[in-house]
Amino acid sequence: MKDRKHLESGMDVLWNPRSVAMIGATNKLMKWGFIIFARMLTEGFEGEIYAVNPRDDEILGRKCYRSVLDIPGPVDLAIVVTPSPSVPDVIRRCAEKGARAAVVITSNFSEVGPEGAALEDEIVALARDAGMVLVGPNTMGICNSANNFNCLMGPVSPLPGTAACVAQSGNVGTHMLMAGVRRGLGFGKFASSGNEGLLRFEDYLWYFGRDPETRAVLGYLEGLGEGSDFIEVAREVTAKKPVVLLKGGRTGAGASAAASHTGAMAGDLAVIGGAMRQAGVILADTNKQVVDLGRALELLPLPRGRRVGILTRGGGWGVITSDACAEAGLQVAPLSKKTLSAIDKILPPYWSRGNPVDMVAVIEYKAFMDCLEILRDDPGVDSVIALGVNMDAQSEKIVESMRALGAMTEKEIAEFVRGHKAESDAFFDELRDFIAASDKPILTVGRGRDESDWKEGLMMIGEPENAAGLLGKMAEYGAYLRRRGLM
Amino acid sequence: MKDRKHLESGMDVLWNPRSVAMIGATNKLMKWGFIIFARMLTEGFEGEIYAVNPRDDEILGRKCYRSVLDIPGPVDLAIVVTPSPSVPDVIRRCAEKGARAAVVITSNFSEVGPEGAALEDEIVALARDAGMVLVGPNTMGICNSANNFNCLMGPVSPLPGTAACVAQSGNVGTHMLMAGVRRGLGFGKFASSGNEGLLRFEDYLWYFGRDPETRAVLGYLEGLGEGSDFIEVAREVTAKKPVVLLKGGRTGAGASAAASHTGAMAGDLAVIGGAMRQAGVILADTNKQVVDLGRALELLPLPRGRRVGILTRGGGWGVITSDACAEAGLQVAPLSKKTLSAIDKILPPYWSRGNPVDMVAVIEYKAFMDCLEILRDDPGVDSVIALGVNMDAQSEKIVESMRALGAMTEKEIAEFVRGHKAESDAFFDELRDFIAASDKPILTVGRGRDESDWKEGLMMIGEPENAAGLLGKMAEYGAYLRRRGLM
Repeated sequence: MKDRKHLESGMDVLWNPRSVAMIGATNKLMKWGFIIFARMLTEGFEGEIYAVNPRDDEILGRKCYRSVLDIPGPVDLAIVVTPSPSVPDVIRRCAEKGARAAVVITSNFSEVGPEGAALEDEIVALARDAGMVLVGPNTMGICNSANNFNCLMGPVSPLPGTAACVAQSGNVGTHMLMAGVRRGLGFGKFASSGNEGLLRFEDYLWYFGRDPETRAVLGYLEGLGEGSDFIEVAREVTAKKPVVLLKGGRTGAGASAAASHTGAMAGDLAVIGGAMRQAGVILADTNKQVVDLGRALELLPLPRGRRVGILTRGGGWGVITSDACAEAGLQVAPLSKKTLSAIDKILPPYWSRGNPVDMVAVIEYKAFMDCLEILRDDPGVDSVIALGVNMDAQSEKIVESMRALGAMTEKEIAEFVRGHKAESDAFFDELRDFIAASDKPILTVGRGRDESDWKEGLMMIGEPENAAGLLGKMAEYGAYLRRRGLM
Repeated sequence: MKDRKHLESGMDVLWNPRSVAMIGATNKLMKWGFIIFARMLTEGFEGEIYAVNPRDDEILGRKCYRSVLDIPGPVDLAIVVTPSPSVPDVIRRCAEKGARAAVVITSNFSEVGPEGAALEDEIVALARDAGMVLVGPNTMGICNSANNFNCLMGPVSPLPGTAACVAQSGNVGTHMLMAGVRRGLGFGKFASSGNEGLLRFEDYLWYFGRDPETRAVLGYLEGLGEGSDFIEVAREVTAKKPVVLLKGGRTGAGASAAASHTGAMAGDLAVIGGAMRQAGVILADTNKQVVDLGRALELLPLPRGRRVGILTRGGGWGVITSDACAEAGLQVAPLSKKTLSAIDKILPPYWSRGNPVDMVAVIEYKAFMDCLEILRDDPGVDSVIALGVNMDAQSEKIVESMRALGAMTEKEIAEFVRGHKAESDAFFDELRDFIAASDKPILTVGRGRDESDWKEGLMMIGEPENAAGLLGKMAEYGAYLRRRGLM
């Protein structure tokens, strides 16, 4: 594995600068030098923030310096948005000022052709000679929710949390952060890696692997420098924390598009996919699944095997979920006699007496929780998918009918609604606590009451296929850790 | 193909009864005889609705009859919720009354064992002898939004529309209707087919195929009677309208669960899947995809081939979409020279000059629409996936910063928001009209402004994988119709 020790202090500065200079800050409303500067000022970052631009005296109420060299205090980190031809001089001055790191948002470097590539080589050499680390160029920025430092182009303020993320597409990365907000997944450190002139994907992975504040590494990648180096880094990190990646360029068409987007060598990832999986990397199917896996891995334990118990309120959903489990590499577990007799006491005699456990017409929340507990505690079951969790729609519909018929007074309706809501809320709370206290993962499928379910720790997964998909990936990572003797 | 002509008039009555008797209507609040009766009364159905129950005189303000035979006027259709042992007598009396159809919601028939099966055989024979059709038993009901007739257990009032649906799981079918409400997909006729004692899945398919009000048939199935008969029916229907099915029991685990749920023979569908596809049936991957396909097929033309143009605001999304297209059996189309030079005039010189078309930093709506039109009009392109449609988040975030900084007055903010919203709304309207006027399907990916986008005819698909999945299935159906000389 390549030595990366020399990158560490520079990368520490990236996400924990004491002082930041924005080179190219501006008063022009829709320019990045305005949007990003405004964002840095308003997210609650407590370090120093300086504006640098020879054409302004003041920006958003802050004194604006003609050059980074004019700033009275020290500057740890430079955020650069000036036109590409100016960037070599900017980096030179930042180095002279003693900055340890630069985030070059400016584009028009290697992504536009040979001239740009030469310019990129120049700024990278300048940074390297000065012992600086450099994000980008052509990056959409970085952020760290631990200190509210946000210099992102993308319109998102991630929730605080312990996932880190590196993306070889700023747009894709931004959408991971946005999905995180909806899913309750908090991100600490994030980087859009841009053209990766200096810091490469595997450097971020290495750093996040060592970072005690990072509990999981998420990412999007299209191309790699040295595959073997990446695999060594990945193997080191996956032993300590999960690494969930979406890789673009799995197919010929994707690889061609990647070659044009990031210059990734066609077929890079087709070759390396198997090795990544062997190194314990969780390869997600979609961008959304990356984030859902991030949330699942922070809320749920890993399953100790592939055997799933399915609890459902409808036989058809049991069938669909069984198919989805099989297709995700999971097994629908045979249930023990003890489990069957325990459920016999709850469900009517004609219940399916097997897995999936169909609640048939039994709608009481208590019976649902009892069956869930019995199913979870079957020693032949490693995880549970529970479907049909949300029963609110029926009572809403009843209220609608009663109101239309004038069959209940508004007072009666209000009481009915209150009663149902209390019961439903208590059930959701109990379910969430039950899942949190379980040493086997329990995934719940159904419509959430609203987005707050995910935020409060109850993953209400819309489709059984998605639940089985998440569980299959979690089981694969669990099996990997067991093979390495780490679980 | 089996002769089904004798079923037709009975099935006409199912969805267009002039008068309906609910056998087992009740005043007991949470009973199905109450919930469903209340729903029938309140959805706007203009036919006669009678309550039948020997223990009540009045239910929800309606006179209650001791027996269906006591009802003064004619009864076309009976909805039955009385306990299973009573059902043979109920059917006898309904036959005597001259009813043409019955929907037996009651359970405890063949799904619970041999005794129940014998009882089911009895009611089926009674119905058949009387020339009645029978839905169920153990059905979750039927509905028709064309006449607001709704006798569903599931808490849903479908939107009016021209899709029909038959489901071998009431729960799964109900969720299709619910998803339809969110997606703007209207349903006409729906049936939960239950145990299929008399009317079987293929009978509904046959009927919907002939029904001039039905433009597409959706469904969920687990098991079939005679595969060859089903295939013949399907082949007849798919020539006239699309048939989109989710089939449960694709895998061993799913087939076992299906055997326990509907008694489907294990492996039924594994064997017949290929034949179904050859008969032009669109086999969906998920329940949600069934509904999304239903909506796509009513809003968009079928593609004339598999060649896709991709328009994106981020290179990474272009790569992800290219992979998704390849995995869905689609091709990322090479673009013509004419197309490339036309786009050259809009995008900066360093644009990718190929497919996917990455808008790079060009954010103007007009440029997006211009590129979309050029891409659509390339003769080598059969369909377009357009990503990054919704740009509202950025301006919301800017407002947030400006407010936090006090950099704009509330009046200025209001003006900015109004200006942006007007521009954004105009763009969405233009995009929707453009898609509606196109003879190639254009699928849009991005977060909707809210659920009204789908309802108003703009499918804002959350993930590119889903867009490619839909398009792949549409292309397959198009290829099938072309093979049969029907397109």
